[in-house]
Amino acid sequence: MFESAELGHKVSKEVWDRELPALREALLDAQFDLTAAKVPVVILVAGVDGSGKSETVNTLNEWMDPRHIQTHGLDEPSDEERERPHMWRYWRMLPPKGKIGIFDGSWYTWPILERAHGRTKTSDLDQDMAAVARFEQMLIHEGALVLKFWMHLSKETQKKRLKSLEKDPKTRWRVTPRDWKHFEMYDTFRQVAERALRSTSTAESPWIVVEATDPRYQRLTVGKILLERLRARLDNPPPKIHIAVAPPLAALDEVNILRALDLTKRLDKKDYEEELLSLQGRLNLLTRHRNFRKHAVVMLFEGVDAAGKGGGIRRITTSLDARNYHIHPVAAPTEDERAQPYLWRFWRHLPRRGKVAIFDRSWYGRVLVERVEGFCSEADWQRAYSEINDFEDQIVRSRSILLKFWLSISQEEQLRRFQERQATAFKRFKITDEDWRNREKWPAYERAICDMLDRTSTEIAPWTLVESENKYYGRIKILKTVVERLEDEL
Amino acid sequence: MFESAELGHKVSKEVWDRELPALREALLDAQFDLTAAKVPVVILVAGVDGSGKSETVNTLNEWMDPRHIQTHGLDEPSDEERERPHMWRYWRMLPPKGKIGIFDGSWYTWPILERAHGRTKTSDLDQDMAAVARFEQMLIHEGALVLKFWMHLSKETQKKRLKSLEKDPKTRWRVTPRDWKHFEMYDTFRQVAERALRSTSTAESPWIVVEATDPRYQRLTVGKILLERLRARLDNPPPKIHIAVAPPLAALDEVNILRALDLTKRLDKKDYEEELLSLQGRLNLLTRHRNFRKHAVVMLFEGVDAAGKGGGIRRITTSLDARNYHIHPVAAPTEDERAQPYLWRFWRHLPRRGKVAIFDRSWYGRVLVERVEGFCSEADWQRAYSEINDFEDQIVRSRSILLKFWLSISQEEQLRRFQERQATAFKRFKITDEDWRNREKWPAYERAICDMLDRTSTEIAPWTLVESENKYYGRIKILKTVVERLEDEL
Repeated sequence: MFESAELGHKVSKEVWDRELPALREALLDAQFDLTAAKVPVVILVAGVDGSGKSETVNTLNEWMDPRHIQTHGLDEPSDEERERPHMWRYWRMLPPKGKIGIFDGSWYTWPILERAHGRTKTSDLDQDMAAVARFEQMLIHEGALVLKFWMHLSKETQKKRLKSLEKDPKTRWRVTPRDWKHFEMYDTFRQVAERALRSTSTAESPWIVVEATDPRYQRLTVGKILLERLRARLDNPPPKIHIAVAPPLAALDEVNILRALDLTKRLDKKDYEEELLSLQGRLNLLTRHRNFRKHAVVMLFEGVDAAGKGGGIRRITTSLDARNYHIHPVAAPTEDERAQPYLWRFWRHLPRRGKVAIFDRSWYGRVLVERVEGFCSEADWQRAYSEINDFEDQIVRSRSILLKFWLSISQEEQLRRFQERQATAFKRFKITDEDWRNREKWPAYERAICDMLDRTSTEIAPWTLVESENKYYGRIKILKTVVERLEDEL
Repeated sequence: MFESAELGHKVSKEVWDRELPALREALLDAQFDLTAAKVPVVILVAGVDGSGKSETVNTLNEWMDPRHIQTHGLDEPSDEERERPHMWRYWRMLPPKGKIGIFDGSWYTWPILERAHGRTKTSDLDQDMAAVARFEQMLIHEGALVLKFWMHLSKETQKKRLKSLEKDPKTRWRVTPRDWKHFEMYDTFRQVAERALRSTSTAESPWIVVEATDPRYQRLTVGKILLERLRARLDNPPPKIHIAVAPPLAALDEVNILRALDLTKRLDKKDYEEELLSLQGRLNLLTRHRNFRKHAVVMLFEGVDAAGKGGGIRRITTSLDARNYHIHPVAAPTEDERAQPYLWRFWRHLPRRGKVAIFDRSWYGRVLVERVEGFCSEADWQRAYSEINDFEDQIVRSRSILLKFWLSISQEEQLRRFQERQATAFKRFKITDEDWRNREKWPAYERAICDMLDRTSTEIAPWTLVESENKYYGRIKILKTVVERLEDEL
């Protein structure tokens, strides 16, 4: 994989001087067209030590309009970042549509280093790389152009470079014992990198290995490939997956998981108030447990209109310290959010440890309202199930506690609540024409909900179905689930 | 994921009697169209113990024309199968175009069981499932329809079923202590299965979970979904990946790995004969080493026409026992081979342990001649690099020894050899018009070869580049590489 980048490629000063002006102009043009076409571009610059990664990144900034480039060097993760899923820091850095994001260090850095130092096994690396491949696939399906450059130096060249730096008194300080220690790991590192590159070189986003021996060759090559890919992306539509299969068939006997719920379950007011007080007390105690600060808590509430999401949420938050939770009501995405992959607006709100994020509606909108209303293509919502599962896998792997509630009511109960809302002055704002329209699509929604539960109620993130026909019963079930789950985990 | 399949779904005898005739007729029709459209169909029937998997498989054979169905139950692997890469047995069973292959037990069985019994870790399961997902993706890109059914029984139902079988003297014999032992593992198994299903439920090939409590419901559901998917596949083109990226740019300085080879390397006749004898002796000894029988050996030879592949191969085989090696000259695929994914014809020739398979040209045809001559689409050869890497990963993981040789000569030397062949009566059959035509495409081939080496010379299966301008030098380098590699491995 690296052999072609060990041939001593170089470019003369004459060629450089001759080619550079046209390349820079063409790159600027392409960048301009890209902004107009609203294509987000992700450029990874990875490679061995001392291979001029940061110099390349600086060159790209110099050659193009830096106002539309966001460059990210990977320092140690901040405490903010350490307390969230591993990929959170990268999601924060994703370029919006029309911008170029350059990553000097990326989602590859950590898994490769961990494996090279022997702190993980090959199967761990493969597991990480499979997740990375799916992540990049998702970016591409969301319209991004993903370019991955690997800067390579042969062992011999790297050694020479370190020695010549050491020889010159003016540059001696740049070579530390740590550099030599890294150099001793060259072979191991190369082997691990080769495995990582092999398993993530896909047809849509292959790695591009560039020899770093001669800076002129290196930069001109990166610039030319970048130009070629930008132009190819501008001249072609983004890749779309074709779904040749029909969506799953509804059950033959008209029985489904929603209809199977026993909506007659109820609590009377006295029992409700007693249980409520007791559970809220337990919840409050739990939030003051010393282990509470070791976990982030993510709760999401989905349900048809008027199913009681807001009421359920309020019964939880009254037990929490207002400084420690945030409610995120999910409505139409903002302009910033529309410029990003659809999961971005949820990633940005993932909480730190000790904090609770409550989503009133959530990322499941993709496979519910967006599917039913045709806001996204069938291919888009079909692929969303596994993208969502991957997202939740990240949440759970970071030791966050994830709770997913589906609140269920009957069509008749919904009607009753709508009418009540219209009759009550202070509740009228809660009912709109859209609510009535959605109601007509009940069967399509029911189908989408069942598919969603089938595909995303997983061993790592199961759904809790809440019979909410009786509000008291529903609220207590929610609260109890939260309390028992926290008691388990803390 | 399994919740919807624990609702006690059932279908009455009336519905069954009413729906069945039309369904069977429609299935037969679809099967007929499928044969005409030459679509291969892969149906996996997996699930928990006692969930009527084999009954379902039998039903499908009964409903459709069994002459175009190939059914595979997975017994213990044969010794033939154990001595080859894990996936070999499944490749043997793949249905050709126009046929339906039904798998009762599949590539999921073993990884799930191993994990459930705690013999592997979660990261191993994830690694296996990522490979499985890529394999199925490849099948789909090669035109197959892949349907995956998971038959599910709730814990309660499974228990009841075992108990009722035990109670009846006529069926008591069917329940063994092993069945109860398996039952105790229900929760673990369910969790592992859920993880496996989650990570392989893709948009193109999602798992379909079917409740197995009521056989009528189960079979009618499977039949109806099957029909729906067959029809959807017949009415839509197969999914194709879109490659939005341009292929890699050639090196700026016109230096490439082929041109960098030192073709002046040579051996004189005397040294050649001496070394030849000594190496052939060592090789012969190695093949009688007691560890030789623990490995299969796969060698492949690629190179432009007249590069000396045949001569190189002959210098190896003279040291081998004719019963232990096979040479596979790769020409146009046969009719059987054309009915399968392009890698199939190489899978079928993978050797058992103690045997040597020598490929004179190989699976790399996909990214060489097929790319250059336009025999496959750009998307096809672009995805082939990682498919080939996956294939070789399988070979290497089965402890086979894989050697890949690229034989390189200059364009002038090729011309000289062509002319010599034409001048020599007994060599004339070796030179055809096609050879002369290929010669004109030298630059396109050079580009394809360099891309191939960059993408497929990996840490697990590196290429050996052989300077073959001087035949003596080339043959000795090949033989030496083989001998030293075997000495290392045995």
